[in-house]
Amino acid sequence: MTGEFELIDRITRGLVARDDVVLSVGDDAAVLALSGHAVVTTDVLIENVHFKRQWSPARAVGRKAVAVNVSDVEAMGARPSAVVVALAFPKDLDQAWVEEFEAGAREECDRAGVSLVGGDLSSSAVIAVCVTAIGDLGGRAAVTRSGALPGDLVAVCGRLGWAAAGLAVLQRGFGSPKDMVAEQQTPTVPYGQGVVASRAGATAMLDVSDGLLADLGHIADSSGVVIDLDTGLFAVPDGVARVAAATGKPGIGFVLAGGEDHALAAAFPAGTDLPEGWVRVGEVKAGDPAVLVDGHAFDGSRGWDHFA
Amino acid sequence: MTGEFELIDRITRGLVARDDVVLSVGDDAAVLALSGHAVVTTDVLIENVHFKRQWSPARAVGRKAVAVNVSDVEAMGARPSAVVVALAFPKDLDQAWVEEFEAGAREECDRAGVSLVGGDLSSSAVIAVCVTAIGDLGGRAAVTRSGALPGDLVAVCGRLGWAAAGLAVLQRGFGSPKDMVAEQQTPTVPYGQGVVASRAGATAMLDVSDGLLADLGHIADSSGVVIDLDTGLFAVPDGVARVAAATGKPGIGFVLAGGEDHALAAAFPAGTDLPEGWVRVGEVKAGDPAVLVDGHAFDGSRGWDHFA
Repeated sequence: MTGEFELIDRITRGLVARDDVVLSVGDDAAVLALSGHAVVTTDVLIENVHFKRQWSPARAVGRKAVAVNVSDVEAMGARPSAVVVALAFPKDLDQAWVEEFEAGAREECDRAGVSLVGGDLSSSAVIAVCVTAIGDLGGRAAVTRSGALPGDLVAVCGRLGWAAAGLAVLQRGFGSPKDMVAEQQTPTVPYGQGVVASRAGATAMLDVSDGLLADLGHIADSSGVVIDLDTGLFAVPDGVARVAAATGKPGIGFVLAGGEDHALAAAFPAGTDLPEGWVRVGEVKAGDPAVLVDGHAFDGSRGWDHFA
Repeated sequence: MTGEFELIDRITRGLVARDDVVLSVGDDAAVLALSGHAVVTTDVLIENVHFKRQWSPARAVGRKAVAVNVSDVEAMGARPSAVVVALAFPKDLDQAWVEEFEAGAREECDRAGVSLVGGDLSSSAVIAVCVTAIGDLGGRAAVTRSGALPGDLVAVCGRLGWAAAGLAVLQRGFGSPKDMVAEQQTPTVPYGQGVVASRAGATAMLDVSDGLLADLGHIADSSGVVIDLDTGLFAVPDGVARVAAATGKPGIGFVLAGGEDHALAAAFPAGTDLPEGWVRVGEVKAGDPAVLVDGHAFDGSRGWDHFA
């Protein structure tokens, strides 16, 4: 691609390399000094599949690409260390889009406390973003999806329902509530809370990307347990409630089933004094793997009406 | 994407996780137990930019995606440990293509001795592949591009000119010499030679992806040295010579300037007893950064005629 080296040079100028970066961009690969096991995760974002240019400014796409990957590192109980960002885009794409994308990626790296240590640029018929995030377990074991035990409490940290409410707003051609739309464009990942949860004794954890019910199903399946959520423990945020009212859907539906939030959900031993920011929302029980809502299997065909 | 989980399940069934894999696919992220600093590199392959479906079978694309990334890990003097593979493809793409791609990725992982520990699947208007490779320096320092010193010898390991010769064949609508075409479809990376070179004292190293002259230019620039190649030390492989004769171009041009080979090039202290498989091809000298051929600056405008 013409100008690739110049573009890389401009993008990488002044990059902040944190203490664990031995070698940043500019060589065949980056080098990291990790103090424990390495955590590795990758995600692609494709134009018109994961984002639309008319709905998300380039900066938000750059932020989101970093955020959703670092979120997976958090979900293992690891300290996020670094990301590499590959970007492919049409040759006729406005260069300002690329620069704003990279500015967004760097902004989110700063929020997450990670270093941008490498990447790749290419042309492509559609915009494709691929981020890989590396984390450092620092001597702790990873918090997987399979360690939840009957009797554990279930807790969440971060925002639930916001991104789905934002999507509902955008799909109707509106732009507010703005904080819901912003959450759809870039999730607010509770950075640092993965390590906090691990230190507090979390037995299982994941990040909520497909909706809380669906994702807790992975913990239920992997751990061989039942997870029973108590809707009385959930607060429906004001903005979600407003969108819910406008769309005629129950707010709890957005909270329990809305995707793309990237909150953290975890199980902790009963009696755990939950860290600040974590909210107890249910309990782990023995039984064939399932996620229950107020003790009952959620009946998708009936929708959310009986929770409203 | 409909069927994503089923596809992931089929793709990841029976994956080999090597000794340093603490946790493979199936959680939010993979976990690796590295013994030294971590090396991280990422590359994208885009349909019709990096490969054409009519020129490269899916299996070759899968192999190449892994190979070109692991090659970068080798170039740091690290032991390749693991890769994550993200694949985005059109919804109407034949599922056999995806399965063959993944089979190729796994085949190349076996050749390279790395574990496939994670990935992502998405739909996309064009096929986009993004691989990130992780390496383990195992207590050694990385071999960067900046350590070459005047007096060092320059050596290469692996195939040079083959991929460019294969491309010339394909561009003319032919399919042989088959080994040249195969090299264009999937480079033969000299796996293991990165660590070998590091242990032999390599002062600078990189993998040859843009052509030997261009890539050695990076070592010259980063190290602040002149690299002088001796064309008398290069053997033009038979297949390259045949393609060269058929196209009317000098064989040495393919060897010195052909891209996509993913051989390794390195500098070693003078007098180094080169490891098996490494061939001395030139010398590092003091001076303003430049790459010379037989003591002269290569004149691109005159082409390769004066080397023929």
